[in-house]
Amino acid sequence: MGRAQPAVVKMPIETITSSRNPRVKNLVKLRERRQRDKQGLFLIEGYRELSRALEKGIRIDEVYYSPDWFLGENEDALLRRAEAAGAHLFHLAGSAFAKCAYRERPDGLLGVAPQWRLDLADLVLPETPLVLVAEAIEKPGNLGTLLRAADAAGVDAVLLCDPVTDLFNPNVVRASTGVLFSVPVVVAETAAVIAFLRSRGIRTAATTPDTDTRYTDADLRGPLAIVMGSEQYGLSREWLDRADGKVRIPMAGRADSLNVAMATVITLFEAVRQRGGTAKPPGRGQTAK
Amino acid sequence: MGRAQPAVVKMPIETITSSRNPRVKNLVKLRERRQRDKQGLFLIEGYRELSRALEKGIRIDEVYYSPDWFLGENEDALLRRAEAAGAHLFHLAGSAFAKCAYRERPDGLLGVAPQWRLDLADLVLPETPLVLVAEAIEKPGNLGTLLRAADAAGVDAVLLCDPVTDLFNPNVVRASTGVLFSVPVVVAETAAVIAFLRSRGIRTAATTPDTDTRYTDADLRGPLAIVMGSEQYGLSREWLDRADGKVRIPMAGRADSLNVAMATVITLFEAVRQRGGTAKPPGRGQTAK
Repeated sequence: MGRAQPAVVKMPIETITSSRNPRVKNLVKLRERRQRDKQGLFLIEGYRELSRALEKGIRIDEVYYSPDWFLGENEDALLRRAEAAGAHLFHLAGSAFAKCAYRERPDGLLGVAPQWRLDLADLVLPETPLVLVAEAIEKPGNLGTLLRAADAAGVDAVLLCDPVTDLFNPNVVRASTGVLFSVPVVVAETAAVIAFLRSRGIRTAATTPDTDTRYTDADLRGPLAIVMGSEQYGLSREWLDRADGKVRIPMAGRADSLNVAMATVITLFEAVRQRGGTAKPPGRGQTAK
Repeated sequence: MGRAQPAVVKMPIETITSSRNPRVKNLVKLRERRQRDKQGLFLIEGYRELSRALEKGIRIDEVYYSPDWFLGENEDALLRRAEAAGAHLFHLAGSAFAKCAYRERPDGLLGVAPQWRLDLADLVLPETPLVLVAEAIEKPGNLGTLLRAADAAGVDAVLLCDPVTDLFNPNVVRASTGVLFSVPVVVAETAAVIAFLRSRGIRTAATTPDTDTRYTDADLRGPLAIVMGSEQYGLSREWLDRADGKVRIPMAGRADSLNVAMATVITLFEAVRQRGGTAKPPGRGQTAK
């Protein structure tokens, strides 16, 4: 706290000291899905997340910064990068930033960016894609972690069916540690996703406890989509009836001892192993914009 | 809220209405490690966690309950089971419970139980054990999730080296979803753990990015300990120098895209696969008491 304002950043266009400032109020509003949808915007809070968004060429409209809250040394460089990429910078007094920060431990950086929408038709997939399908994930934290798992496994696309959680929820952005900006994510209805995968010749493997086929005994090579159900209810009847195959993860402990993100990462990494175990280079199918 | 007090439970011995009651105050104190260590006690909050503790025969000294906060239908039966197992029940007014509940969404049940300590010498391991070693894990949530992963994989014991986080932290209990009560966990120094594993003929596989051996190419059969490092720093020099082998998880995304719990579950389930892929029955080596 109390560090001087970075000297290298251009003279701030505006310094906001009041937490009743309409811009500050709007940052608070953007925590609500309705407001995000209405304004077509979302929040990117934190050094790491903003830095990854910039790396991936995500457009950022505004960055609110408050040196009182800075934790590191490189905030200044980040702000200059954001400004060079077209973002408007707003300097906030510490108290005003406290009002609009969403995190428990704010680091003095909060960006506003336009949402994007990727459709199934936009997806450019390689010849032998590995796709992750997730149905009706409930918790933003789980959805974010699931995106991290997909990123680590080098998945070509994540298809979210009938999502309960908004992809642009601040907790998804946070739990994904910015992976949201690199993995192509499509939100679509189950029927459309099934039709799309069929049309592209991509087999579907539904994960469920109700099968004898262990995930390690199934053939997870070739064009493949691994399909994960929701935390509470697992996969819907529609997916279970229409998937090309079913696999289960044998567990020693209690049935609920793996959460959905862990079950996802286990299955994806077994697929990676069967496919040759080589991590794909980062430049995959399609960027997330 | 406002549901009537369960009728079947015996007349409460004591009804606490004041949040300044010394018992309520002590429940708040037990959130601090120093107090937990001093009193040799810890908190078990929530229906699921208490229920699993009772299932596993964990001794529970006291259960504080507040029907105003109950979420389900079975609290009454749980309280009777706890009482039959020797716990003292205390009825709390809703406002007093709000004071001592640790969770964001309390469910009206909070237990106090004596801590236990399991030593390396106490461990009874099968002929071909699979052990998880975790060094200096920092975040209670990660430690809890790591225990869940160990449980799901049927690990015979978890050895925590030089832990930064207290095993009896309320967030470990919570994130472990009660697995803490079933998996044998030993806290010990690195040197003692290495000596113990050598004396039992258990090979060690250290996970690190600094090796060319992929975890899927290593032989993870036979008596084996998988060794995971801390979130920030990975494994210590001591472990890296003294482990029998090193393995890495190839990742497509950013180096930090897997958290320690996910890296653990991937490695453990690959070991399970190589060892025949069969989940072990729940009755393992040693109970956690």
